[in-house]
This record gives sequence, structure tokens and C-alpha cells, in this order.
Amino acid sequence: MKINHNGVTEPSGFYACGRYTGMKYKRRDLAIVYSDVPAKYAAVFTTNRVKAASIIRNKQLLDSKSLIQAIVINSGHANSCTGKQGIINNQGMAESLASVLNLDVNSVLTASTGVIGVQLPFDIINKGIEKSCIFLSDDRQGAIDAASAIMTTDTVSKEVSAQFNIGEKLVRIGAMAKGSGMIHPNMATMLAFITTDLNITQSLLQKAMSDSVIDTYNMISVDGDTSTNDMACILANGLAGNEEITNENDDYQTFTKALNLINIELAKMIIKDGEGATKTLETTVKGAKTKEDARMLCKSIIRSNLVKTAFFGEDANWGRIICAMGYAGADMNPDGLSLRIKSRFGSIRLVENGTPLHFNEELAAEILKDNSIEILVTLSDGDGEAKGWGCDMSYDYIRINGDYRT
Amino acid sequence: MKINHNGVTEPSGFYACGRYTGMKYKRRDLAIVYSDVPAKYAAVFTTNRVKAASIIRNKQLLDSKSLIQAIVINSGHANSCTGKQGIINNQGMAESLASVLNLDVNSVLTASTGVIGVQLPFDIINKGIEKSCIFLSDDRQGAIDAASAIMTTDTVSKEVSAQFNIGEKLVRIGAMAKGSGMIHPNMATMLAFITTDLNITQSLLQKAMSDSVIDTYNMISVDGDTSTNDMACILANGLAGNEEITNENDDYQTFTKALNLINIELAKMIIKDGEGATKTLETTVKGAKTKEDARMLCKSIIRSNLVKTAFFGEDANWGRIICAMGYAGADMNPDGLSLRIKSRFGSIRLVENGTPLHFNEELAAEILKDNSIEILVTLSDGDGEAKGWGCDMSYDYIRINGDYRT
Repeated sequence: MKINHNGVTEPSGFYACGRYTGMKYKRRDLAIVYSDVPAKYAAVFTTNRVKAASIIRNKQLLDSKSLIQAIVINSGHANSCTGKQGIINNQGMAESLASVLNLDVNSVLTASTGVIGVQLPFDIINKGIEKSCIFLSDDRQGAIDAASAIMTTDTVSKEVSAQFNIGEKLVRIGAMAKGSGMIHPNMATMLAFITTDLNITQSLLQKAMSDSVIDTYNMISVDGDTSTNDMACILANGLAGNEEITNENDDYQTFTKALNLINIELAKMIIKDGEGATKTLETTVKGAKTKEDARMLCKSIIRSNLVKTAFFGEDANWGRIICAMGYAGADMNPDGLSLRIKSRFGSIRLVENGTPLHFNEELAAEILKDNSIEILVTLSDGDGEAKGWGCDMSYDYIRINGDYRT
Repeated sequence: MKINHNGVTEPSGFYACGRYTGMKYKRRDLAIVYSDVPAKYAAVFTTNRVKAASIIRNKQLLDSKSLIQAIVINSGHANSCTGKQGIINNQGMAESLASVLNLDVNSVLTASTGVIGVQLPFDIINKGIEKSCIFLSDDRQGAIDAASAIMTTDTVSKEVSAQFNIGEKLVRIGAMAKGSGMIHPNMATMLAFITTDLNITQSLLQKAMSDSVIDTYNMISVDGDTSTNDMACILANGLAGNEEITNENDDYQTFTKALNLINIELAKMIIKDGEGATKTLETTVKGAKTKEDARMLCKSIIRSNLVKTAFFGEDANWGRIICAMGYAGADMNPDGLSLRIKSRFGSIRLVENGTPLHFNEELAAEILKDNSIEILVTLSDGDGEAKGWGCDMSYDYIRINGDYRT
């Protein structure tokens, strides 16, 4: 398995572009991804009851098992909470792209990200789509431009890719994602677009994607807010030429391993770019009653504002970690709890079997100066284990979000 | 019904004091409340799985239906996550006070608030209790001192009282509370101490308290973190001389009305004093499928960091309110949703039946300048209705919590 940081044009037959249309930002705001041949399509969506127009439509296309050949994505406006006009504008985006590329409209996905509750400037986006398609390219630049066009408060674009063999065929996966705020995925995620030239059935593609999301995107949190526009999707166009994967054999396992690496890498990149973040936090819980208990405990720790601000202040206020575990809703015996904090600057034990240890505050302060911290929790309730990723909360989080629309 | 801002010494036969013992803060850090005669006792406690030593003991005393005559409360150390030594120190606090006041140890409640995971400085607290009891007084000053001694990051002390008649007897309720951070009560609350001279059975006292908490303390949030030390308790010593209330008659209704007023008032005072808060937010949801759905929607709005930072930035970014409702877990049809924002400076409609309205941004900005904002949501799903109270999130929230222990 080879991991690198190429994007969605890495697999055979995928093209992309990212262009400036003048919708909202003074930078690229429209991305298009295209496959030479119709691709199998799998996706997971936000569980927010309020769903953007694009999410509703993409879900219908998934339910009808449509093959997909292109995706059009705009940034600046989420086209969520926009009523009937929002549905019409979203369908219009798909129709514009289908018309320019001479595709069936049901082979085009749409995605939007940005401010909720504002109508899309449809004329601008329509003209933008018409002018952009000639820039579709299957080289590195196309992927770079697309990845930058889907950013909102992101400060860096997020791309990752992998190569692996199925039999004698080389298979490639490429991916891009956006996400920095409103990040608390629940059975879905922010926007992530994955391409692969693997040949696989749609049902196995969906299973691999759904399974992978549980321990990757669903285990991160920036601010506890689950977006209305979350979607992680994958297109598989089969151009690698491998024999179609039709059951959960070794080839399927090879693919899911690559897919997991891709998704974990993107999830971590989103956290590292969390709004205002100065540190990333990786939480590991072992010995929980069940895997689901371990997940709940990890998520509660990384979601807690008090934990996040303590790490920003480089304060070993570990009681807040225990407190967050206590209200996680998980089954847990606090008397069997041990806690350790670790970074590149050292490691320190804070609690052993429910009892606080006297610890060296100077060493703790030194450890907490690092920009990447591990929180290691061991329980004595079972063998449930999980990892979660979060970030600290700084003054910049308030600055960014106190002034987002203006 | 007469509401004023006297505290726990308002009812007949209650004494209080608040003293400086030198435990942690350079101000009052020990409070004692005393009743001339044993009082019936009712309480609700945190649902956090990790419970402070005081919570565990007070719960046992409630289960055994102990009559209570005194409460000793320290600030600076929460005595939570402190293992066996914490349990011993907590019992020691109760024994010290029982010994000085010549009471049965099982008639003494304890409460602690402050940093989690640090052992109580037992010698200091023990000496403090011995020296403090002579200052117990049944006048206004005793209540004022006690209310200030239980503060941690609170910037103001919180007291409220009420008078009402049961038959020809005048009954009084007095109360004090503390709370500013780690506020997201769940079936319980921060520390709230309520005294009354009402004559009522213990079971009805408990029912009144449990019922009242659901729509008062449990409907506020400062930061989404449920404390390990939350407790709201009430002592009723019967000295008003009314005929004992033994069923849910008109007298009981009069009492619960007064108790609700007291609890709502304290809950609002806690929110107003929320860590770093510059604005209070009152959310009302009407037309939800059930009352529980309405509560979930209110709590999700006031908990959202993105909603809180938008109000801090005085930005009418109402999409974040809808988004928070969407992930609340409540049953809700977004197409029937209407939203209005209101303050002393005006009122503005933002969404009508799921469709965003064009609104006057200047008027919105003017309305949002007020330090008290109402968020009014109407749904078309049923007749469930609830109110919740929260606050904005400012740079000061980060400052206070990045540097709490040091």
C-alpha cells in the first residue's frame, strides 16, 4: 500500500477542475469532478433532520442506484434551509452540468457548502458551470484546483491518495475533503469526495464506505455541531481493469484497508485545520465495556469545551476529561479508570485505578506545549476500544465564528 | 406571591454564615446553613457517572429519608475523582460540623465545588468549621455571606426568596445557588440550596422539587458540560406552622408555583453569570410534536457553540439555529418552521414555514446589540412547548477556562 497526497484525479479516467465564478469568495468557488465512464456510487449523509437540497437529491440518486459520471460542488452558500427555490436551484446546477457535458441529469451529483439560509446566485453558478468544463483535466493541477475550490473556513486544502494491487492490476484511490467548523459528524461527515478506478459491485462499495465512516469521520469533532450538508461519497469507475469484486474476499479487505487509511487521513487533516485550533488531540479509550461505549467516551472527551480550553491553556486539568467521560452516557466504572497524557515531549500518568496521582506539574506543562497531544484512557470494564480526534478551542474560534457571514 | 432577593435565612428558623478559611481562594470559601429544628429534605443530583464524594453521601441520606439540620459547603475543591481519601474527607467534614453543633452526623449534608481531582485540605477545612459556627445568624448578613462563600468562577452571588400564604399562615422560601461554568444540567443541576418553613411531607417535597427541576435548571446550558457535583436540594423545617401538606391540593399547587419561580430565577441568574457571557439567550419552542421534543430543541439551540458565537458577534446567522434544531434528535418537520428574534430594540421575522425571508440586516444588527435576546421558534408538529436559557460565547470564556487552575 502506497499513500501520498495526490487528489481525485489520481485514479484512471477521473478529471477535475476548480474555478472562480464570483459567487461569494474572492477565490475559487466551483469544483467539478468527471469520470470518463459511468461509475458506481456509494455515500453516507448527514443525520441532521434539516438536509440541504443537494443531500436530499443525492440520497434519491443513491436509492435508485444511479451510476454517476460527474459531481458539481459550490462553496459560499450551503443551499440549506432555502425552501422550494433551493430545491429548484440545486436541480438547475445538475441540469447545467449535464447539458454542458452531454450527460443524463441523473448521473450528476451536486454538493454545496457555506452559509445556511441564503439562496444560490443561480445565474452566476450557471454561467460558471458553462465556462468551467473546458478546464477539466486528469492531471495533478485539476485535483489541486478542485480541492481548493471546495474550501470555506478551511485554511489548507485536503487531499490524499493511495495505490494498491488487486491481482496484477494496480488500483488507485484519490480523495479530497473540506471541513473546519460545524464538525461533529454523526453517521456521516463533512464533504469528502473519493474516486477510485476499482471494479467492485455497488453494494460492496457502499458497505465498505459505511463501515469505514464509523471509525473515521464519525470519530472527530471540532465544535459539536453536525452540519446540514455533510456527505462523504465515493465513485468507482472500474478502469483499473481488475476482476469485479463481488464478495468480501481478500481483495475486498485490501480495498477496505486502503479506504480506511484514506478516510482516517482526511479526518485528521480536518481536525488539524479545525477552526482556531492550535493543537490536535487524539483520544484512545481501551478496556471499555463495548466498542460503542469506547466510542461514546472518546467523542464526549473531544467534544467538551472545558477539555478543549484546558488544552489551549496548556493546563493539565485532567478532572475535566473524567467529567466528560462521566456524562458521555456510556457504561463505565470510574474506580477502574487510569489516565495518561503523552506528546513528543514526554508522557505522564495522572490517574491510576480511579485514584489521582501526585504528578510533576512542570513535566505536565512541558508535555502540553506540543501541538499534538495523546489522551490515553484505560478502563477495566471489558475489551471495547476506540480512537477519536479533536482539537483545542482558542480565541480564534470565537473570532472566526463571531464574524462568519460578514 | 411576593418575590425578592433575600436568601436562605428568609424562612423562620434558618441560620447561615460564610467564612474565609484559606483553602484556596483569597475570599470566603466555607458556607454553613443550619435549621433550628430537623427539616425534611429533598434533592436531585447530577446524572454524571462520576459523582463527587458529597453527592454519593447526600444521595444515601436521601434514600434513608434522613431529616436534615445543617449543610456544610466548601468552594475551591470539588472533592470529585479523589478516590477513597475523598470519601473519608467528605465524611470528616460532616462529622466536624455535627460535633460542633451537637448533631447526629446523618443530619448533616455536605457539598463541594471547585477543581476536580485534588484532595481537600482537611486540616484547614476542619479548623474552619470549628471557627465558623459562632457566626451563624438568621439575619440577611448570614445569607449574603453564605451565598458569596459558595462561588467559584461566579462573578455575582445568587439569592432569591418568596413569600406566600397557606391558609392564614405566611410561608417563606429562600434560596442561594452557584454556577457559571460546567453548566449543562441533566436531571439535576449546579449547587442550589433552598430553605422553606413550609410544613409538607417528604414525598411531596421531593415530587415538587423533581418536577420543578425539569423545566428550570435542566433547561439551561453555559457550555454543554454536566458537572460531577451538581445538586439542588431543599430543606423544609415546618416552622411556618401551616397544617401539613399531605396531598396535591391547592396548597401544594401554591407551593410548587413559588418553588418554580425560585428555581427559574436562580437558573436565569446562573446563565446571566455564565463564564464570559455578554448576552443571555431565551429560547422558546412552540408547536413541537411533544413537550419533550420542544425541550430537546431548546437545549440543542442554547448548547451550540456556533449559535453562541454568532450572538457574541451580533450576527443574525439564523441558519445555525435551524442546524442545531436539526441535530437535536427531536421529531421535527423543517418545512413548518418559523423563526423570529426579539429584544428590547425590536423584533424581526427570519423564517416563515421553512422559507427564509428577506430581512433588514440593519434592524437585525440593532436588535442583536441588546444583552438579552429572545429566540422564538414555531413549529407545526403538535402542541409541545418549552423554554430554555443560555448565553453567548466570548473570548473571555476561552480566557477563563484556558487558565482555571493556575
